[in-house]
Amino acid sequence: MFFEGSEKKAEVVINKNSFSLLNDISDDFWLQLVACCNAKVLSSIKNENCKAFILSESSLFIWEDRFLILTCGITQLVYSIEYFIKHINAKDILHVTYQRKNEYYSNAQLSSFSDDIELLSKYVKGKAYRFGEMYSHHNYVFHQDNQYQVPPDDISYELLAYQIGESASKFLTNKGLTASDVRAFFCVDELLPDFQLDDFVFDPYGYSLNAISDKDYFTIHITPQTDSSYVSIESSLDLVSLAPKIIEILSPASFDLLGFNDHHFVEKIAENISENYVSNSLVSKILDNGNHVFFTNFITPKTQYTSPIRLDINGKIQVI
Amino acid sequence: MFFEGSEKKAEVVINKNSFSLLNDISDDFWLQLVACCNAKVLSSIKNENCKAFILSESSLFIWEDRFLILTCGITQLVYSIEYFIKHINAKDILHVTYQRKNEYYSNAQLSSFSDDIELLSKYVKGKAYRFGEMYSHHNYVFHQDNQYQVPPDDISYELLAYQIGESASKFLTNKGLTASDVRAFFCVDELLPDFQLDDFVFDPYGYSLNAISDKDYFTIHITPQTDSSYVSIESSLDLVSLAPKIIEILSPASFDLLGFNDHHFVEKIAENISENYVSNSLVSKILDNGNHVFFTNFITPKTQYTSPIRLDINGKIQVI
Repeated sequence: MFFEGSEKKAEVVINKNSFSLLNDISDDFWLQLVACCNAKVLSSIKNENCKAFILSESSLFIWEDRFLILTCGITQLVYSIEYFIKHINAKDILHVTYQRKNEYYSNAQLSSFSDDIELLSKYVKGKAYRFGEMYSHHNYVFHQDNQYQVPPDDISYELLAYQIGESASKFLTNKGLTASDVRAFFCVDELLPDFQLDDFVFDPYGYSLNAISDKDYFTIHITPQTDSSYVSIESSLDLVSLAPKIIEILSPASFDLLGFNDHHFVEKIAENISENYVSNSLVSKILDNGNHVFFTNFITPKTQYTSPIRLDINGKIQVI
Repeated sequence: MFFEGSEKKAEVVINKNSFSLLNDISDDFWLQLVACCNAKVLSSIKNENCKAFILSESSLFIWEDRFLILTCGITQLVYSIEYFIKHINAKDILHVTYQRKNEYYSNAQLSSFSDDIELLSKYVKGKAYRFGEMYSHHNYVFHQDNQYQVPPDDISYELLAYQIGESASKFLTNKGLTASDVRAFFCVDELLPDFQLDDFVFDPYGYSLNAISDKDYFTIHITPQTDSSYVSIESSLDLVSLAPKIIEILSPASFDLLGFNDHHFVEKIAENISENYVSNSLVSKILDNGNHVFFTNFITPKTQYTSPIRLDINGKIQVI
């Protein structure tokens, strides 16, 4: 069985002078919104500036003036965004962005990025890009094309790690693994002091963590299965500076590092990425919404020949 | 519009003491077989040991005791193999292998490797492997699991080049490009002296070449479009030794080199691949049919940030 960890991600900004997403919208609305992409809310935490839901497929974060939602597997996140657009006054929606990583069993997906953008374009006019080469890791980015400019302090990052080291994969697929085991493994106390934490261990495999502190967020989603392991981390904290620590913990065969609106991204990459990794992709652009987007992919050169993976040809590969 | 250049490939060996595939089977049978995967024969050449057809989607080569067929796009090659199996006495079929590269718009494919193997397994018992990581270039290999052993002189190679250099892509997408232009570009006279040649320029883009000499074959298939360019070369000639010349002509961002049954593959790779390329994948195994299979992928490290590709969000991406 293969779990498609690659995420779809959307962010919507509203006019906070009209109302507060955090305080004026009922949880019921969010449950409905999440149901539209065929996910479920598993748990939540909250502080006075942010609410965070762990979903059956990733996470939802809500602030006063915006929300961010990530979903993986075969969810159709675009339907959740459509739900929001249909239920909120158009004049109060300032900006919509939608993003999607290339998938590895895209034949199991219920729609393509192109399908999703066709649907979104019925409601918002925008531009779309592919960051990264067609024949390698890449990320599709769509943003609404209007007067909205991303504020300078709206900075965020993604670190997507593929094919984690054998010992990490082994540890994370241990039977009876607890949330506290995974927190210790990730040195969460050290990485995220003073964060409020919420996490969930999936059966038989998988782990999700949401962490919030004031307006900051940090989320980890783990698909640990050997031969198709994947760990995604998304945060307002500087993941380029944290990369050496995270890469040491996971030792992935390759990883993507994305930066949004951090104008020092290039220098930070040069400082923080070990020479054991080689850059396979370096792409950047300041979008028309002012967002300076960086997409990078790094690989570890192989020195030894390894064996192929034997496939089970009796049972069809199920993708969830 | 995106053309899925990634190939499916099958080889079937028969008992030549019963009959000759080359001389005892009518062209009409091969036309029917090709039609089963929704491809068409465009032209053919022949010598006393081999017949080669250029197809609307790649190539078919026929020898006395075996045939090799490659098809790309959204063809379903497995149906051609099923057609062969249904029309030839089971006792005369010695060995079936089936191979498939990961696709980039797999959502547009009409079946997955897993589906194909499920169908083939109704007729032949076999084993299947994935050579290469899930999250990077990989190749699926199925082989019938019987007493058959691949003869020591059945050696072949594949060189699959992704995202060729700007000047190569520009030249190969020139309006009015002729077959003779492409032959000159590839130094075909130098690479393939004494080969009988057959080639075809597709409209608006694309080029296929079949070349045969005695029992040797060499085939090139080019999808030259900028941003998704792909060139595949498959041959019984030693493509590892020819790689420096081919890579110089194409300057791809990355390429796969596969070897079948060449026990000196590892040393040849070390000798022939320039240090400008870094190994992203090295996988090998001697299969139970005796075939020593090597899969390697190389990339050029990036040093400069480039711009993303702007996508047309009005027209849906068509995959053919």
